[in-house]
Amino acid sequence: MSEHTTGTARLYRVDVQFGDCDPAGIVFFPNFLRWMDQASLAYFMACGLPPWRVLERTRGIVGTPLLEIHTRFMKSATYGETLEIETVIEHWAAKSFRHRHVIRRDGVTLCEGTETRVFVMRDPHDPERIRAIPIPEDIRAMCS
Amino acid sequence: MSEHTTGTARLYRVDVQFGDCDPAGIVFFPNFLRWMDQASLAYFMACGLPPWRVLERTRGIVGTPLLEIHTRFMKSATYGETLEIETVIEHWAAKSFRHRHVIRRDGVTLCEGTETRVFVMRDPHDPERIRAIPIPEDIRAMCS
Amino acid sequence: MSEHTTGTARLYRVDVQFGDCDPAGIVFFPNFLRWMDQASLAYFMACGLPPWRVLERTRGIVGTPLLEIHTRFMKSATYGETLEIETVIEHWAAKSFRHRHVIRRDGVTLCEGTETRVFVMRDPHDPERIRAIPIPEDIRAMCS
Amino acid sequence: MSEHTTGTARLYRVDVQFGDCDPAGIVFFPNFLRWMDQASLAYFMACGLPPWRVLERTRGIVGTPLLEIHTRFMKSATYGETLEIETVIEHWAAKSFRHRHVIRRDGVTLCEGTETRVFVMRDPHDPERIRAIPIPEDIRAMCS
Repeated sequence: MSEHTTGTARLYRVDVQFGDCDPAGIVFFPNFLRWMDQASLAYFMACGLPPWRVLERTRGIVGTPLLEIHTRFMKSATYGETLEIETVIEHWAAKSFRHRHVIRRDGVTLCEGTETRVFVMRDPHDPERIRAIPIPEDIRAMCS
Repeated sequence: MSEHTTGTARLYRVDVQFGDCDPAGIVFFPNFLRWMDQASLAYFMACGLPPWRVLERTRGIVGTPLLEIHTRFMKSATYGETLEIETVIEHWAAKSFRHRHVIRRDGVTLCEGTETRVFVMRDPHDPERIRAIPIPEDIRAMCS
Repeated sequence: MSEHTTGTARLYRVDVQFGDCDPAGIVFFPNFLRWMDQASLAYFMACGLPPWRVLERTRGIVGTPLLEIHTRFMKSATYGETLEIETVIEHWAAKSFRHRHVIRRDGVTLCEGTETRVFVMRDPHDPERIRAIPIPEDIRAMCS
Repeated sequence: MSEHTTGTARLYRVDVQFGDCDPAGIVFFPNFLRWMDQASLAYFMACGLPPWRVLERTRGIVGTPLLEIHTRFMKSATYGETLEIETVIEHWAAKSFRHRHVIRRDGVTLCEGTETRVFVMRDPHDPERIRAIPIPEDIRAMCS
């Protein structure tokens, strides 16, 4: 029982730094994933959610870990450049959702990927454990 | 014109660090990609290749950037744990190859993914540009 | 033969990210050093310098590696917060210069430090080697 | 009321990775600080302490944040090299202690630094706050 309900696309800006680049002079690729993670949280905060640490205190939600990522890299980037990440939620399932991120420089796509994530809470019986919960309806509504 | 020629699987060990983990207390996921990148270079060096910077001087090859990654995350990890990454090259195409990495803790799979990579050289006319080259036959032979 | 010639202070903004924080929920401290490095390059670019990769092509200068850092941490920070880094060059010596960075959140100092840096070029006889050069007079003039 | 009681020196090994290096081809310096942090926790674990997350559960101690660092960089390093970090606690004060780390490659010192740290607990009235505690006597004894 899942359906497609893409919400608004939101933009997130990244200024590529010297330390983000490798000896080939281009962005070390795990940083693209780091920026998608930033764009994901920025997306939820732009929808009106507080940072996870506030949600943890009020509702026990500690974040949205990944189930799966799939990314294609078309062009490289380097420091001194500004990138724009366009983020949507392209699918909500019962217990997960899927982001699509497109990273562009001056309108040209450098990198495109999806992230499938779950909302998690700490296990009340073992706070070192986290477990997935059904998508909170109010959060989904805020993002639609 | 591509074919399947999986070479030997090789193992790479990672000790998860405090600074690799996020406020939820688990590995911040881009680090899994960083470790796969380490396992990839370790794979080639175990096959007898020198580090990229030596290959750059002798043959102009500056590394093996990514075309595509696909990763599934099954279980989380935290600091103080030791992970083992099993890496193979599961496919060689004319101008790219594909790694498969399986990350395990005590034999249990935490994370599994593929990386499609190309060998690149600097463009002799514009050293800031890099471009893909056909898979070097000798390197392929060393890894088979 | 050195003298004190503090140039203009410049401000650099950092939005602290989830992935910048550790299992204690606060910024993992090497990130403060990473941000000071970003503030240093932003300082030079605000003075009118191009990114290092352009300087490398035109003048052989590949960057400004560190000789020494000294940092005091007064208060922690966490994600969702915006920090402001105030950067000056507080001293120019014949072959090095010293930055002072003060990192604040809402006007409160969290962290304060100095960086002593040198300008380096690649050794023309061994491009894998870099070596310090006298402070370029024109760059010093641009920043004063 | 403080005194000098340097315990045993302990060694920690680091294999420098491609992704640890910057466009100049050398280690991006905040990684040296990251490795000192790893060497610090490895030091305590070699003395018999469990990881912080276990100490947090049993005693509320969440780690040893930094008050101050001071580091000098003498030589650069690059990927494919193995570094050795020699770590001691060179001073215990009432509420803080000071590490000295020396990072060497083949016996040659690349980088040397001190870290002044405190043990912290979460504030029982506000778990988002952490505060310094007197040096736990048993931990000090384990490391002496």
